[in-house]
Amino acid sequence: MKDNLIGFAHGSGGRKTARLIKELFLKHLGNPILNRMEDAAELPVAGSRIALTTDSHVVYPLFFPGGNIGKLVVCGTLNDLAVKGARPRFMTAGFVLRAGMSMDVLERIVRSMAEELNKAGVQLIAGDTKVIEKGKVDDCYITTAGFGVLEHEQTFAPERIEPGDAICVSGNIGNHEAAVLLAREDFGFEHKIESDIANVWPLVGALIKAGVDVKAMRDPTRGGLATILNELAEAAGLGMIIKEADVPFSPAVKGAADMLGLDPYYLASEGRLIAIVAKDHAERALEVLKAEPLGKNAKAIGEVREKPEGLWLETLLGSERPLLILEGEQLPRIC
Amino acid sequence: MKDNLIGFAHGSGGRKTARLIKELFLKHLGNPILNRMEDAAELPVAGSRIALTTDSHVVYPLFFPGGNIGKLVVCGTLNDLAVKGARPRFMTAGFVLRAGMSMDVLERIVRSMAEELNKAGVQLIAGDTKVIEKGKVDDCYITTAGFGVLEHEQTFAPERIEPGDAICVSGNIGNHEAAVLLAREDFGFEHKIESDIANVWPLVGALIKAGVDVKAMRDPTRGGLATILNELAEAAGLGMIIKEADVPFSPAVKGAADMLGLDPYYLASEGRLIAIVAKDHAERALEVLKAEPLGKNAKAIGEVREKPEGLWLETLLGSERPLLILEGEQLPRIC
Repeated sequence: MKDNLIGFAHGSGGRKTARLIKELFLKHLGNPILNRMEDAAELPVAGSRIALTTDSHVVYPLFFPGGNIGKLVVCGTLNDLAVKGARPRFMTAGFVLRAGMSMDVLERIVRSMAEELNKAGVQLIAGDTKVIEKGKVDDCYITTAGFGVLEHEQTFAPERIEPGDAICVSGNIGNHEAAVLLAREDFGFEHKIESDIANVWPLVGALIKAGVDVKAMRDPTRGGLATILNELAEAAGLGMIIKEADVPFSPAVKGAADMLGLDPYYLASEGRLIAIVAKDHAERALEVLKAEPLGKNAKAIGEVREKPEGLWLETLLGSERPLLILEGEQLPRIC
Repeated sequence: MKDNLIGFAHGSGGRKTARLIKELFLKHLGNPILNRMEDAAELPVAGSRIALTTDSHVVYPLFFPGGNIGKLVVCGTLNDLAVKGARPRFMTAGFVLRAGMSMDVLERIVRSMAEELNKAGVQLIAGDTKVIEKGKVDDCYITTAGFGVLEHEQTFAPERIEPGDAICVSGNIGNHEAAVLLAREDFGFEHKIESDIANVWPLVGALIKAGVDVKAMRDPTRGGLATILNELAEAAGLGMIIKEADVPFSPAVKGAADMLGLDPYYLASEGRLIAIVAKDHAERALEVLKAEPLGKNAKAIGEVREKPEGLWLETLLGSERPLLILEGEQLPRIC
């Protein structure tokens, strides 16, 4: 791939995506809000704290164990609001459909969207549909915007992270990407892996209600746990250390990653959150998360430290190795 | 096209699009806000009148006389807010790019977006990028959301339309679709037609400031003047009559439509507005529109009447013929 052409790595969520954003999008479109490059932007609208986000979804195949693109667009969008501490309220959706796509398939997708939106108490309030040329497969791309409201005084922002803060995850990591990958072809892998897609707002709402001092929050989507923690560490100008013994992976995901030669620390989840919480709030945070069905496997996996900068993994043998931001592409079209 | 497959007509903005929206999207996702099917939704957020809209753009070719997809996504989105009377404030953009797309082409598109946003004083505050498989051509699909604020007490809504109201347009109709069509191949047509793409907010802002009683407003995009007026007439439960002698078309657009066998009343514009205004405000509305550079060809083209329902054209010969909503497809991927 030449550098002057768009490649899959530009959509992977890793270093090339970050470069595209900085050197092209921020160069021309930058402003104090966009430059923060957060999952959702907080808007200065008189009297309210409003959050707005957007997400494009091109996942392939459209259906996979544990979900489909419809469930994914809703949860992906709501989660971007939730990790900023905003209660999701409204969503928009723009559909780009291939001519020849089955109307029944589209209806199944829309029905999944409706189910997730209803569960979340969120309304779709605007939509658009465009049709493009026939392809070889049923295919659709859905881009959403999410609108949420911050109903509290807390601010989740990487600037608030301090040495000593605890790094918590709400459950097993990487199931979504493993499920999508295994749905693409028959690798002869015997364990069924379901995507972890879920709306994480109930977890976030519970942490806020319990008064847990959350410094920053993200969901480990494209680029996985390793990339997202790198981004948080870089934004905070600090280091992070996580323990291999404590990061929760299901044995099936570990096995699939081994078989396929992928590093599980870079596998995307779509229903998990990473919370950086004040040290003396870590225990309470885990209690609150574990009390929710979606958080029953929550774990504290490491802590923030002054130096060295970047993300480090304490291996089972007790040595430390750096976990860098995702280089190049891992798997295209996982979300 | 079988009825259980998606076809180009489902993205044309005409009757098939309306059926897809009603029978699939509203069936599953309907709620009082979405069911209004307006260009932008007004959100019940405490203390402010906020408008939110979304638009997907798949125009092909990406560049055409008078603009490109970048300028189009910005103006298209801002116009959907403007015609609800909302001052555009923020925008989001989700890019779906083809692997192999030229980075230079993408940069030209992004630069156009930046130019239009800067002129309008609107900030892009969130974005997303996904990459899909290589195609034969440079190709990108951009879906935006627009966020605006209503800073006045007026409500533009078809329920407010009454018999006697005047139908005004802000300038020549159909240039955008004609320009895109002629950019696709060399039809040997001698006149150059430029798209009319423009942000219409200055016109809308001027009408509001002047206190003109605007009952309803739309921009005549997909489906053109005839389809949009049909939708307004249907929503109002009234009839409309427009005069062939008064509808402003440029001779080049009329000529191109004749040559290509297209009805110019169905050709899309991307920088025009249709305003339904109280009868005794029509003169003032035209004065205000004509005082703006973008409105210098503004015209009153007809009026609202009790019966017969639907949209009618008074021909140059003085007879009346119905102008129905767009049936089937006209031209795919014009926006």
